[in-house]
Amino acid sequence: MLSRLRDAIVAPAVNADAGARRHLDQLTKPPGSLGRLEEIAARLASVRGRAPRVEHPVIFVFAADHGVVGEGVSAYPQIVTTQMVENFLAGGAAINVLARQAGARVIVADFGIAMARGPAMTTAQAIAAVERGAALAEAAIDQGADLLITGEMGIGNTTAASAITAAVTGADPNVVTGRGTGVDAAAWARKVDVVRRTLTVNQPDRADGLDVLKRVGGFEIAGLVGVILAGAAHRVPVVLDGFIAGAAALIATTLAPDARHTLFASHRSAEPGHAVALAHLGLEPYLDLGLRLGEGTGGALFIHLARAAALIYSEMATFKSAGVTGPAEP
Amino acid sequence: MLSRLRDAIVAPAVNADAGARRHLDQLTKPPGSLGRLEEIAARLASVRGRAPRVEHPVIFVFAADHGVVGEGVSAYPQIVTTQMVENFLAGGAAINVLARQAGARVIVADFGIAMARGPAMTTAQAIAAVERGAALAEAAIDQGADLLITGEMGIGNTTAASAITAAVTGADPNVVTGRGTGVDAAAWARKVDVVRRTLTVNQPDRADGLDVLKRVGGFEIAGLVGVILAGAAHRVPVVLDGFIAGAAALIATTLAPDARHTLFASHRSAEPGHAVALAHLGLEPYLDLGLRLGEGTGGALFIHLARAAALIYSEMATFKSAGVTGPAEP
Repeated sequence: MLSRLRDAIVAPAVNADAGARRHLDQLTKPPGSLGRLEEIAARLASVRGRAPRVEHPVIFVFAADHGVVGEGVSAYPQIVTTQMVENFLAGGAAINVLARQAGARVIVADFGIAMARGPAMTTAQAIAAVERGAALAEAAIDQGADLLITGEMGIGNTTAASAITAAVTGADPNVVTGRGTGVDAAAWARKVDVVRRTLTVNQPDRADGLDVLKRVGGFEIAGLVGVILAGAAHRVPVVLDGFIAGAAALIATTLAPDARHTLFASHRSAEPGHAVALAHLGLEPYLDLGLRLGEGTGGALFIHLARAAALIYSEMATFKSAGVTGPAEP
Repeated sequence: MLSRLRDAIVAPAVNADAGARRHLDQLTKPPGSLGRLEEIAARLASVRGRAPRVEHPVIFVFAADHGVVGEGVSAYPQIVTTQMVENFLAGGAAINVLARQAGARVIVADFGIAMARGPAMTTAQAIAAVERGAALAEAAIDQGADLLITGEMGIGNTTAASAITAAVTGADPNVVTGRGTGVDAAAWARKVDVVRRTLTVNQPDRADGLDVLKRVGGFEIAGLVGVILAGAAHRVPVVLDGFIAGAAALIATTLAPDARHTLFASHRSAEPGHAVALAHLGLEPYLDLGLRLGEGTGGALFIHLARAAALIYSEMATFKSAGVTGPAEP
């Protein structure tokens, strides 16, 4: 399955967005005056190969535990991962509220809660987790999903994301490690040290995402890699939430570099490593609201922008249809 | 009426948002992890004096002609103002699309289309236009409006906004004049020159918004000043769209400085003068999407963020209600 997905991921044609850009320029507004909303519309059209549409967004919230919590890297105990999954299922978490507002379906999946401490996973386990994420995404696509949003929950997973970001981009752990849920300076120093040791001891191969995944974890990140690859293979746009999703995208693009064209960076997280990941991916985020919650919350907010872009594209009058005079000839 | 509004506008109490902040910290997320969404929720609560709510947003789209178009400052002929108003009424403009998406009512009002060239208006006319805008806002508030969004249409009105911004902030016309609908370098130079001459000839009193208004125009900007003052007087949050709305806010805050607390800068426009106006107002915009269309489009996009903030505030579970363990004691 992983090979099938990787083979199906190709770069969009040159000028794939030219038709969409021409259409946008005929709408009753000065050309380009809707700024990045027009960019979103053109990119959605380019990924899909037809008019942009955001009618059935689906948010994947994958959850997993991280043994690294035992090292004192988080302000919250490990049990909170399980408790928050119960909160998701009861509809009381931030992502539930924002998904309801945006008319999005939420798919919560347990990717390994309460896993054991030790080496993160075997290669076979990494592949299985990626394929499970991809299978969930393919099922949603079969049911009409037209926008896939990557969310997650895992106390300790900013530590894993920092390690992945350092491994794939080559940045120093010091630069890509942040305060996560809000740890103090001492815990932050421990976290940097854990990330540094993880890389020194495990020596992940930065060109091979599966190798990085198996040495660093976690399972929910592997699942999101699968969502990204499935979206790219089926030409369904994928929205990255924050830092953890960015780490998943770093892994996914080592496996299939052209997956990058399918990705929309919803926002810039307050986590310092996120900007490093986005720069490496060549993505410019659309929102910058100081979010650092995860769960897919930034991705859920981006749905409104993506839908606005699609509706502008399909519902606005043209200069011709509305009888509005175009710009004066220079 | 203007005096009544000005007298009713007072600064919020010290720590007016303390209760809201406390509530936000009890919700199932690390404190502050929803970043500026929490700031919006706390500010909405502070303005309203009760829980934030965004159920009935209303977008005011005020239209007026500007005689200055005769000076060659716009890429579009003056008739486009009228044609676009017809487009608004037919529901085909960008603001109609975005308002439908956001569940907002649009109020289009003619504030002086096809006005004559010459001195912008008399003091009595300026006051009448402000009061008309305020009356429309008060009527909407009476009908339940809980968020007021300032939109406009007026070919030539970025020239007026540049003149207002230069007059009130003291910035050079060169710095606050942009490309508007997309003029070339020669038209831009003409526009800077027109702004400079307007200020030199008319010598507006920067401390008196009505004086600036009557010397520079335009009527739709005066109407938006009325919306801002009415929102501030009735403690209904007011969302500024882009550069023109920012100019209206500069005028409004010379008349009632505490109106500033009621204002939300939805986005940072691509027009260079907008950042100057926002800095003067002490407002930090929430979106930065390179928009330069006006009509209230950036304000309409902000409705989703404001609603998200209000829903987070009212619908999320608390640590206690969801049985989630809080942060570990340090």
